Amino acid sequence: MPEDKILNDISHRRFNPLRGSWILVSPHRTKRPWQGQQESPSKVTLPDYDPECYLCPGNKRAAGDVNPDYKETFVFVNDYSAVKEDQPDYIEPLAESADDKSPLLLRATATKGKCYVITFNPTHNLTLADLPPADIVPIINTWTSIYTAHLPPPHPHYAPTPAITPPREQYTYLQIFENKGAAMGCSNPHPHGQVWSTIGVPEEPALELQHMAAYQAAHGTGLLADYVALELRKKERVVFANAHFAALCPWWAVWPFETMVVAVRQVASLAELTDEERVGLAEVVAQVTKRYDNLFETSFPYSMGVHQAPLVCSEEERAASHLHLHFYPPLLRSASVRKFLVGYEMMAEPQRDITPEQAAERLRNLKGDEVYRKYL
Amino acid sequence: MPEDKILNDISHRRFNPLRGSWILVSPHRTKRPWQGQQESPSKVTLPDYDPECYLCPGNKRAAGDVNPDYKETFVFVNDYSAVKEDQPDYIEPLAESADDKSPLLLRATATKGKCYVITFNPTHNLTLADLPPADIVPIINTWTSIYTAHLPPPHPHYAPTPAITPPREQYTYLQIFENKGAAMGCSNPHPHGQVWSTIGVPEEPALELQHMAAYQAAHGTGLLADYVALELRKKERVVFANAHFAALCPWWAVWPFETMVVAVRQVASLAELTDEERVGLAEVVAQVTKRYDNLFETSFPYSMGVHQAPLVCSEEERAASHLHLHFYPPLLRSASVRKFLVGYEMMAEPQRDITPEQAAERLRNLKGDEVYRKYL
Ligand SMILES: [Zn+2]
Ligand SMILES: [Zn+2]
Repeated sequence: MPEDKILNDISHRRFNPLRGSWILVSPHRTKRPWQGQQESPSKVTLPDYDPECYLCPGNKRAAGDVNPDYKETFVFVNDYSAVKEDQPDYIEPLAESADDKSPLLLRATATKGKCYVITFNPTHNLTLADLPPADIVPIINTWTSIYTAHLPPPHPHYAPTPAITPPREQYTYLQIFENKGAAMGCSNPHPHGQVWSTIGVPEEPALELQHMAAYQAAHGTGLLADYVALELRKKERVVFANAHFAALCPWWAVWPFETMVVAVRQVASLAELTDEERVGLAEVVAQVTKRYDNLFETSFPYSMGVHQAPLVCSEEERAASHLHLHFYPPLLRSASVRKFLVGYEMMAEPQRDITPEQAAERLRNLKGDEVYRKYL
Repeated sequence: MPEDKILNDISHRRFNPLRGSWILVSPHRTKRPWQGQQESPSKVTLPDYDPECYLCPGNKRAAGDVNPDYKETFVFVNDYSAVKEDQPDYIEPLAESADDKSPLLLRATATKGKCYVITFNPTHNLTLADLPPADIVPIINTWTSIYTAHLPPPHPHYAPTPAITPPREQYTYLQIFENKGAAMGCSNPHPHGQVWSTIGVPEEPALELQHMAAYQAAHGTGLLADYVALELRKKERVVFANAHFAALCPWWAVWPFETMVVAVRQVASLAELTDEERVGLAEVVAQVTKRYDNLFETSFPYSMGVHQAPLVCSEEERAASHLHLHFYPPLLRSASVRKFLVGYEMMAEPQRDITPEQAAERLRNLKGDEVYRKYL
């Protein structure tokens, strides 16, 4: 396909149909996409238990609670939540006069919600990349049970669980995410993620949902269902796939080694996955995180998030939703060379140098079943 | 105004009418918004001329060109441009069959353009914060002449200049920006900025223009004209203002000490400014950058950009445009404590802890006419 190949040499913009936005790609700036590693492989120097860690089993947390001697995952409400269950109400002020533009230009809306921390494993020095798929399944199960515990009671997948105190009111959206590594501002290496439920669907999932619903209404098929089928046929942006999930560097990726993990079947949320599909997702997450660590032989930093149907949405929105995960890693050429989203990218438009096809090829050619550290 | 004050204590979302997007504000997480400085004031340790700097007067650049012995500013085409004037064409591939979704999901468009570097001053170790307003005027004049040299020839402000080789074709947008500091990935401390002209209006200015045009069509007045008038009346988010420009922490700021510099009069671009207004802009830029440096007694990193009318746009779009500058600084509590836009903010929605009102008060109470370094 000569039309595609020319995109390796010329400046162009690519369209992200999930967000309805463009990014600038400047592949000619990468004369040498792979300059060789500049650092020696990083080893694990952390203990498997840290008495100072607020996430290790049996340790005391800031607010005084003691973690149980958990064996798989452990969920608790964040002591420093960004949204809370209880707070005073806010009434938007009225215009003081006919030409007071405050209600138009100074708009705010109160928001409540609940923030959880979830530990992925009792062992302090293991990351997702160190875990076999079988040890990632309990994490997916925990994400699923937090989601189903927050669904509105008439929902067919609503499932309260003793591990989650029922929320005081019905929140509309639930964001599962992980921030890994000091480069992402994450100070505790103990493997963990977060889940924030809120009133109001936040910007990113709202934008995606809007575009998925419009696509489905226009074409009768799902945006990501069509997209994952297309990529599995084209293969050049696929990093790893099994029968149930595919990991790929999306056509419109912003971060150098950004990947998206997409369910092959159009499922709206984690709650709809079969046991077999959950195992399939665990395998793909293991493959992606191991390849990331093997890329620069370092513990690869990233932000990861799960996008799925809001807790409360219309039937059309639920039908258009398609479970997927985003991995946004900041590293560019080695463990110490990172990409900054600054300047032009803040003021004008995201920009990348290596193409998603080049990134996918690099990740595809790495080992995905074992992490380099095992041999150090 | 009790309705406003409650926003200092509760989680809420604020609406950005310029982008049509929301941000999450969690002020209760800032129990101590000002914890005192953790580092000693940073001094200037750089020489005023560096023989290795590719921006100092008289030095040789990567491609072999020698910088002139310039006295104010100096403009040249970037040796590593993200967009170029000349490249092969790209023809979007056609669908291979009736159900081939490639043209829908794998969209790209070629883009050309020109990237300039502009040095702000011949002295290697001065920043905008070190310059008196009189030395910032030549920078504004240079920005203006690059803009007017790129306007389409029938335009009333079109003004070619010997300093700029005429572009080979008509570009549609021109982004002026500055990336300052290692925290923003900027490796050369010599005071300089960049200007990228492109085919196609990039995402951020396109989004702002769309919202400004819709507002003007709906209300008959300018969005930012109304907003700056409102803020000058309310005062609580204003950092500094003169008769022509105001610097404020916008109601919808994402970065802790984000500011916007807005023309008081609704002018579409730098080209429409009077001499007096250019002096007014120079004073406000000097005030903002000096206050930033004084905040944590460090050379304050930021990305700054100028938003104004595209080079080519409709008459409605030009009429709705309103010249403004954004400063996006990453520092949060001291010279070494930075904010990361990660995790929830990447996956869901930007989030801030201190309110824009608290940030504006901090900046307002600092010296804006002299920088702390003068007394070290
Ligand atoms: Zn998504
Ligand atoms: Zn703007």
